[in-house]
Amino acid sequence: MKKVILVGGVAGGATAASQLRRLNPDIEIVIYERYEDISYGSCGMPYYIGGEVEERDSLVNMTPGKFRDKNIFVKTGHEVTSVNTDENTVTVLDKANNREITDSYDYLVLSPGGSPKKLPSVKDGEQVFSLHRLADLDYIMSYIEDNNVKEAVLIGSGYIGLEVTENLTAKGIHVTILQHDERIYKNIEADMNGVLYEAMTEHGITLKLNTEIDYVDGSQAVLSNGEKIDAELIITGVGISPNTGFLNNSGVSLKNGLIPINKNGQTNVKNIYALGDAAVTHYQHIPEITMQAALAWPAHRLAHIIANQISGDSSVTHEGFLGTNIVKFFDYHIATFGLSEKEVADVPHFVIDQKQKNKSGYMKGAAPIHVRVYVSTETGIILRAAVVGTEGVDKRIDILSAHTRLGGTVYDLINIEIGYSPPFSSPKDIINMVGYKAREKAENL
Amino acid sequence: MKKVILVGGVAGGATAASQLRRLNPDIEIVIYERYEDISYGSCGMPYYIGGEVEERDSLVNMTPGKFRDKNIFVKTGHEVTSVNTDENTVTVLDKANNREITDSYDYLVLSPGGSPKKLPSVKDGEQVFSLHRLADLDYIMSYIEDNNVKEAVLIGSGYIGLEVTENLTAKGIHVTILQHDERIYKNIEADMNGVLYEAMTEHGITLKLNTEIDYVDGSQAVLSNGEKIDAELIITGVGISPNTGFLNNSGVSLKNGLIPINKNGQTNVKNIYALGDAAVTHYQHIPEITMQAALAWPAHRLAHIIANQISGDSSVTHEGFLGTNIVKFFDYHIATFGLSEKEVADVPHFVIDQKQKNKSGYMKGAAPIHVRVYVSTETGIILRAAVVGTEGVDKRIDILSAHTRLGGTVYDLINIEIGYSPPFSSPKDIINMVGYKAREKAENL
Repeated sequence: MKKVILVGGVAGGATAASQLRRLNPDIEIVIYERYEDISYGSCGMPYYIGGEVEERDSLVNMTPGKFRDKNIFVKTGHEVTSVNTDENTVTVLDKANNREITDSYDYLVLSPGGSPKKLPSVKDGEQVFSLHRLADLDYIMSYIEDNNVKEAVLIGSGYIGLEVTENLTAKGIHVTILQHDERIYKNIEADMNGVLYEAMTEHGITLKLNTEIDYVDGSQAVLSNGEKIDAELIITGVGISPNTGFLNNSGVSLKNGLIPINKNGQTNVKNIYALGDAAVTHYQHIPEITMQAALAWPAHRLAHIIANQISGDSSVTHEGFLGTNIVKFFDYHIATFGLSEKEVADVPHFVIDQKQKNKSGYMKGAAPIHVRVYVSTETGIILRAAVVGTEGVDKRIDILSAHTRLGGTVYDLINIEIGYSPPFSSPKDIINMVGYKAREKAENL
Repeated sequence: MKKVILVGGVAGGATAASQLRRLNPDIEIVIYERYEDISYGSCGMPYYIGGEVEERDSLVNMTPGKFRDKNIFVKTGHEVTSVNTDENTVTVLDKANNREITDSYDYLVLSPGGSPKKLPSVKDGEQVFSLHRLADLDYIMSYIEDNNVKEAVLIGSGYIGLEVTENLTAKGIHVTILQHDERIYKNIEADMNGVLYEAMTEHGITLKLNTEIDYVDGSQAVLSNGEKIDAELIITGVGISPNTGFLNNSGVSLKNGLIPINKNGQTNVKNIYALGDAAVTHYQHIPEITMQAALAWPAHRLAHIIANQISGDSSVTHEGFLGTNIVKFFDYHIATFGLSEKEVADVPHFVIDQKQKNKSGYMKGAAPIHVRVYVSTETGIILRAAVVGTEGVDKRIDILSAHTRLGGTVYDLINIEIGYSPPFSSPKDIINMVGYKAREKAENL
């Protein structure tokens, strides 16, 4: 009987294990997870803080017990510390017993994720947390309650920073966001992020640009500008580092600490697969450019692909990813897909901007949406799209990405037949108008 | 100098005229419109009744005066009564002066639209209206105000019937819907229309199935079941008939009263084009089957195509339409595209149903969406899709139609990278799950 070991039991590993069992009633499946919680929806954690998620346990999909019922063995508190690709074995630290064990596999699936980067300047604060694991959420919630927190400091303004800010605010906690440079939420264009400032003003959030914490002094933080502010709770959101140290000298190739995979989800070692935040692949629409698939959607898709591959169906592959993503910050929605701004700068392109209402302009509550697309001058393919507004942003990014995925050009956007009725769009939706504008531009190039 | 005559100045004709002028500074353009109003958003009219559209004139895009500024001549109250395709002339009745004139064209664009079907049983009521033209809206609004209407009867439950019902209710008027048979809003599957009943119950709307009006008796209506009900206002919404009588014996072919067009928007007569509710073409994804393009989106698209064709750019053509459509009824949204249920029955297919929340299930307010797709057994193409739910229905129908338009199969839905964050979707969105289910079904066929 073949045996699969999965390293990491959060979204990627847990989904891969379930799919493996679905496809193979008889295969042996073991998950090693170095922490205690498995199979939870980490994207939902910020919303439990603010009460949009009412039950903490609704964030958990599968428990070790439920996995056991499927004959999948989950060992939590077990950290894989090295891989021997010649022997097909892993060394595992059983942390509770401080005991090292060796286990062997036919297939190894790596879903180790990442760890939040630490800031040395705040190491002295007992009120310092990051929101990465389910246990972090529990710590934060207890800490808020025990200390009746009214003043929080958020370091960083990535999507988790924004979501946590919104939810702390919903809980009645005043938030100060510290951004070390002068640009917040770098996933969106600097000249399109005005809605974030608007929302912060509307909701009484304090933003300090070009500011860091120098050190923590009890329940206060001393800032780089000399100011001292209340900081009963400090949450850091300054990025993650992939947990791939255990692969050093294993024979599994790394690139900038990430694990490159091919269309089968395979690493350079043919019986070892990888997915999740530590994996790196390429863009679907521009395969020459590498992309890190550190999003929930690609992790779930790869889990299926890898399960199929291991189960012998080599026809199920991935084609790269677009990196479609969206964040909500109060009433505002920000979404992008494709190359980063930096990456797109190296590809010959032109830009189309269109601002238009999300529904028929004569309707009460019609609100502006701003779509920007970066179009390959050579092929007409959308290299990158950015959409900002309130309602209807998700629809537009998803249409653009579905269209681009199948090879549709910007010029062909005029033919996308959006379901029209005044509460939903216009007879010429913003998506269509981007196409009309691009045609006009191309005629005048 | 070439001359274009347009028959009908509502959405299709007015848009075609504007586009013609944009492309041809010098061409002569004349619009004959048999009624008084031109270039208005008829889809927005129901929303003015309920107050969602606050300014009546915001429904009007272009006035004869604004057209005059573009050197486009609009003759309202002028009905084209016949076309002589040998002489390239039209006969026009100037209704105000009861005078017949003849005008000649190089190109003729037919956008005559349709007229609401009349019900003989209600002909005696002065309170009987249909909502088809802008003038109808004005009549209805005055009538409601002058008579302090509190009880209205809606005959029929098509999309206009539903929208008018919602908006009369918002205005504090009790509505009774009469449906002559036992199925409401036939655009959606009988077993998926439950949300309509729910909304009617929630909002105190009375629905009487298998019921018609026998006759009107003052401010009351006597029904086919013998009942007598208050009917201070009666609105009929029982379909439209194309206004194509003037084409009889003209040499322009008709099919069931509709005007067939080719990919250029041309009728069988090469300098005569047609668009709007009276035109008929074919499905984009199943070109063998005829479809009536009686929706605003195809009308606007055809207006551009015809303007390009007349301007000498024969590369701009249409590919048929999917007929993507959506209607809002209170909190519920209903959308479809593709073949009708009747048409799909003749094509070998299988059905996939998926019910899933519109956002991550653990989020407050996550609400069910039901997607049904009819898949060609032969090609895997979605022949027809139906989506019902609350928020997020528009997004799903638009993704499905954009995907289908480019030839994407149901099996490939698993690869559509939906922008994920808990307020918007799931890591495996309902769209993806339809694809996974279809694959599973295909494996077991």
